[in-house]
Amino acid sequence: MTGASSRPFLAALVGDEKVEALFSNEVELAALLAVEAALADAEAKAGLIAVEAAARIGDVCRTFSPDRQRLAEGLARDGVVVPDLVRQLREAVGEPYAAAVHKGATSQDIVDTALMLRLKRVAGIVEKRLDALVAGLRDLAARDGAVPLMAHTRMQVALAFTAADKIETWRAPLARQAEELRRVGPSIFAIQLGGPIGTRSGFDGKGDAVAREMANALGLADAPCWHSERDRIARFAAWLSLTSGLLGKLGQDVALMVQSEVGEAEISGAGGSSSMPHKANPVSAEVLVALARFNAGLLGTLNQALVHENERSGAAWTLEWLVLPQMAIATAAGLTAARGLVKALRIRPSRAVDRYD
Amino acid sequence: MTGASSRPFLAALVGDEKVEALFSNEVELAALLAVEAALADAEAKAGLIAVEAAARIGDVCRTFSPDRQRLAEGLARDGVVVPDLVRQLREAVGEPYAAAVHKGATSQDIVDTALMLRLKRVAGIVEKRLDALVAGLRDLAARDGAVPLMAHTRMQVALAFTAADKIETWRAPLARQAEELRRVGPSIFAIQLGGPIGTRSGFDGKGDAVAREMANALGLADAPCWHSERDRIARFAAWLSLTSGLLGKLGQDVALMVQSEVGEAEISGAGGSSSMPHKANPVSAEVLVALARFNAGLLGTLNQALVHENERSGAAWTLEWLVLPQMAIATAAGLTAARGLVKALRIRPSRAVDRYD
Amino acid sequence: MTGASSRPFLAALVGDEKVEALFSNEVELAALLAVEAALADAEAKAGLIAVEAAARIGDVCRTFSPDRQRLAEGLARDGVVVPDLVRQLREAVGEPYAAAVHKGATSQDIVDTALMLRLKRVAGIVEKRLDALVAGLRDLAARDGAVPLMAHTRMQVALAFTAADKIETWRAPLARQAEELRRVGPSIFAIQLGGPIGTRSGFDGKGDAVAREMANALGLADAPCWHSERDRIARFAAWLSLTSGLLGKLGQDVALMVQSEVGEAEISGAGGSSSMPHKANPVSAEVLVALARFNAGLLGTLNQALVHENERSGAAWTLEWLVLPQMAIATAAGLTAARGLVKALRIRPSRAVDRYD
Amino acid sequence: MTGASSRPFLAALVGDEKVEALFSNEVELAALLAVEAALADAEAKAGLIAVEAAARIGDVCRTFSPDRQRLAEGLARDGVVVPDLVRQLREAVGEPYAAAVHKGATSQDIVDTALMLRLKRVAGIVEKRLDALVAGLRDLAARDGAVPLMAHTRMQVALAFTAADKIETWRAPLARQAEELRRVGPSIFAIQLGGPIGTRSGFDGKGDAVAREMANALGLADAPCWHSERDRIARFAAWLSLTSGLLGKLGQDVALMVQSEVGEAEISGAGGSSSMPHKANPVSAEVLVALARFNAGLLGTLNQALVHENERSGAAWTLEWLVLPQMAIATAAGLTAARGLVKALRIRPSRAVDRYD
Repeated sequence: MTGASSRPFLAALVGDEKVEALFSNEVELAALLAVEAALADAEAKAGLIAVEAAARIGDVCRTFSPDRQRLAEGLARDGVVVPDLVRQLREAVGEPYAAAVHKGATSQDIVDTALMLRLKRVAGIVEKRLDALVAGLRDLAARDGAVPLMAHTRMQVALAFTAADKIETWRAPLARQAEELRRVGPSIFAIQLGGPIGTRSGFDGKGDAVAREMANALGLADAPCWHSERDRIARFAAWLSLTSGLLGKLGQDVALMVQSEVGEAEISGAGGSSSMPHKANPVSAEVLVALARFNAGLLGTLNQALVHENERSGAAWTLEWLVLPQMAIATAAGLTAARGLVKALRIRPSRAVDRYD
Repeated sequence: MTGASSRPFLAALVGDEKVEALFSNEVELAALLAVEAALADAEAKAGLIAVEAAARIGDVCRTFSPDRQRLAEGLARDGVVVPDLVRQLREAVGEPYAAAVHKGATSQDIVDTALMLRLKRVAGIVEKRLDALVAGLRDLAARDGAVPLMAHTRMQVALAFTAADKIETWRAPLARQAEELRRVGPSIFAIQLGGPIGTRSGFDGKGDAVAREMANALGLADAPCWHSERDRIARFAAWLSLTSGLLGKLGQDVALMVQSEVGEAEISGAGGSSSMPHKANPVSAEVLVALARFNAGLLGTLNQALVHENERSGAAWTLEWLVLPQMAIATAAGLTAARGLVKALRIRPSRAVDRYD
Repeated sequence: MTGASSRPFLAALVGDEKVEALFSNEVELAALLAVEAALADAEAKAGLIAVEAAARIGDVCRTFSPDRQRLAEGLARDGVVVPDLVRQLREAVGEPYAAAVHKGATSQDIVDTALMLRLKRVAGIVEKRLDALVAGLRDLAARDGAVPLMAHTRMQVALAFTAADKIETWRAPLARQAEELRRVGPSIFAIQLGGPIGTRSGFDGKGDAVAREMANALGLADAPCWHSERDRIARFAAWLSLTSGLLGKLGQDVALMVQSEVGEAEISGAGGSSSMPHKANPVSAEVLVALARFNAGLLGTLNQALVHENERSGAAWTLEWLVLPQMAIATAAGLTAARGLVKALRIRPSRAVDRYD
Repeated sequence: MTGASSRPFLAALVGDEKVEALFSNEVELAALLAVEAALADAEAKAGLIAVEAAARIGDVCRTFSPDRQRLAEGLARDGVVVPDLVRQLREAVGEPYAAAVHKGATSQDIVDTALMLRLKRVAGIVEKRLDALVAGLRDLAARDGAVPLMAHTRMQVALAFTAADKIETWRAPLARQAEELRRVGPSIFAIQLGGPIGTRSGFDGKGDAVAREMANALGLADAPCWHSERDRIARFAAWLSLTSGLLGKLGQDVALMVQSEVGEAEISGAGGSSSMPHKANPVSAEVLVALARFNAGLLGTLNQALVHENERSGAAWTLEWLVLPQMAIATAAGLTAARGLVKALRIRPSRAVDRYD
């Protein structure tokens, strides 16, 4: 989904190249290999494998380019990409160190940790954009805040207020979301290490030390094994959907303000029509509404995956893979669209102020 | 929905009388009147209305029993119950204080604050139950923790571990949820006061003082007006659905453990069949799964209501009313069912341990 | 949920007494007893039980009033109300005919068939209302069809057309839905008879004849056992949500038309505000939008219940019970609200026609 | 999403190259151009444009390769790809025929009709696979139907029956879905032609004739303009989700049957584990469950798009684009996975038969 050539046109409207890239095969593979390397390094430090083995594994992981076709076939067969990746990695590492690859770990350790590495980068991206959007709303209020507007309740004009009053209803909850991410993020983006059944039994009693070392090396939080406890995933998904929802409120408000008959705002460079040249369509505002409804639905589906049976649910885990990346991309895309919309927005005095006040 | 006579049978399976009662007409009315009384009292303290007016309003609110039929008709007409309630309340208060009732406020101030009063009580109820459930799981681990079980991944036996290992995957995320509620609750359950368009313009510049006083009197957090900023609602809904989802995982695990062929657990007093007396159905475990999926879907719908247009969306607000109380009831019901399930659970040595280990 | 006293206020806005009543304990019990009576009668005709037994069972079912408290406790224990109902019914029938009650059947046969009896009545109610609404839209077009309006695309004025053009976009898909219900209904509302595991093994090879006779007596379609095949349920739910969605489009359009600045329509007797007497809120239009979004979300949840494991899923079945009645009530309520909205609607010449054309 | 190189690994598990290709930029462009060509041809037949113009437009459309970068930018700006495509197409057609391109039509006519062209192909693909799956289940019953199994209700062993009994609960509803598609498909896959506001006003009174001619040429049903009536889309989406749901039931059943302790079935070539070589994971069965839950959630979101405001909703239309292609791909992928699963399935006599019967 990263190659501009094969990228769907629709991605130009609702996509986000930067976050899409984090879920590309290339970046996923790099993350998986980074985790295998960190595992080997931590196991060497714990004396579980030879230092030479860890060095060799680290060297190979830094440059290894696996056979993609075999990986795809392995994923289709095993339901997860790691078993075949480990097979190929062991071949590449060669004797006498092949057996030291992936020692004591299970596929889920690698996949979940590699996901967390990328979710943390997603969080970094959306946090920056959220701060910029909040700042942009402050700037908008500074420039147009004094413009007289009509408040509307239940789709009817209510009483007069100012643009500053309205902009604050967009800014304040987004600022709360930024704080919330800074608060909750660190506990969400955590190492996952448990071994086949989550007991860290394959690490000769040194599993906790290995996990701690890996967490430090990878910049993740240390945590007990959480392979069948998906609350971290659901917590981040809820944050993504709530953010999109707040952007959808902003978009809906702007779409209502720029209505021809209302004229409380203009969007410079709004979209054109193939049949009605006089029109200026609030495309980015509509996109925010669409993304909000899209993410709201996906959040409901993601929470279905909380019913994660026993020590590993292939069904629930696969459902997460289908849903969570889309939520991250939609949220990131919405933040960019909202930033652009706020920049292009010109708030105009409401004609209704005289008419109804 | 509170009268045992008219309470649906289904409520005996998936309902919760205590939380249902918080959303009954009786308790809703009491909360609405408590907010009107607190408003009047705070306005008197701020010098906006006479102390005698506040006293009179407070006296009436403590005992007032409005005409229910008129309220229902008013709700059907106005889309919100408060306009007619205020009409009736003003009649009951009488001159010269009638005009002091609801002064400067709007329906949404009363409805949202009355909702917060009850959501805070919901939180108190579910927090207690969650703590009891976490304790119950600790007790279960203390009693049965040493029982040898088979871990299952992807519906297949994996390796042997102990009941303690499995119970911890249920307990740990629920304990995190309890902490999360304690952390986030206080900022969620906040006073809502804004007046017709959220600007507190009807309080002669004393709106902030009135809000602070009301918050103190009602035991809610002080906050700027948030009438069109629904993130507090969505944040609590996400917590409810996540909690239900974790209970659903517990229920699904138990339902799998008690399978006749697996026999890793028994539920004392499990349900009977009208045609197969030999059966012991894991009803409470299945209920947890059903409630988890129910709440997951409702969360997705609730987040649709984040697209709350302009200064008050009748559509989005009504959608919240349709969804949020059900989520609270389902979560509370699940916690009770889970507590009962954990109490009735007897973990048995896995026959598979010898067969597969 | 039927007693006006305990009926939630909200039901006055988004409820439907007639359809709520079909899901009340009273009507559910009556339906369950009617199915047991029809079963006994059909089994007597097939020679499986004595004619006297069927006569006695029929007599008792016609007048039997079970102990509600015991039923609720039985439901909480067994996960389904029938086992205890059969216990009580056998006591009431007494010897020598007690054993003839419920012969060869299982709880699900009774519950699913009793549901179908009521869903067919729901369909009858909504079909009538849908036809009346379609007729009402035809009348509206006859009266106001010539009124010049502006078409709006992407929230912007587009070109001039007439009220008739707009009304037709509401009427046509609703008319298609009415046709669809007439076509698909008969195959959906079918008898469910299978016995404990769906094989009709408990009827001495006469299960098909018993089912056919029951279907005829109950006015349902004959069908093979479908206890774990929930496509009928999902098909009807999809019809309900689609209908609500089309009503939501009508409601959203009207809410946009009656905006103060647009003024393309008025709703006589629109809702009032507690703080802004000049307002006329399009409450019924907003309600249609809220119900559309509510039912859309519930449909997604109902389809989760299609994953109905093995020969009976307590979890999936309970989830249906939580969702489907609400969908029926919401759809019925929406049809009534839409009918009232269309009756109250007065379409006005668009001021925008001169301004933009 | 079509290039194998950039195709996500996950697509190997839950994707479908054939249906993905129908939603690729290449096939979408081809469909859009085919519609523009058919429009020109029909308008020439109706005397609205010169025959030479239609010939020239047809020639260009057959070979035209637009500037993809410009198209993506146009989509981002206009919210729909057609305005820029028409711009480029007019340049390519050149004078004196440029003005004859897209005459009287609007972007939505082209986009919706091009979507219907591809949805009809999707239907053809899934119908074939569904028939093959139903036949495969018949073959399975023919081979393994006599194998004694235990029926399971509420996760407990119930009574003995045969594999044929169980297989029939998978086959029958899928066969009903195939019939339903044959019945409803023809009315769903219809031409969309309305012009800017859906009134066919730009065709000199010949819009109906143009639409009929286009429908014939494109192999679609003739229909009045339905641009803001999205019931066809929702009807097909409901069919897709219901199909996925029935496959999810099959998958869930198989996952339960192949449990190590149950052993009622084996899947030849089941997936491997990176840490537990003895395991045989029912990957394809789990995938069916995941796809069922994914599509169920998406259906709920798609139905949110039924609230399609006025004569064109940018938000609702964009939401359809985000959801519907995924639903088609997920359903098609599920049918292939189910076919493979049924082929690989070997049903084994239940050990529980002796133990419990």
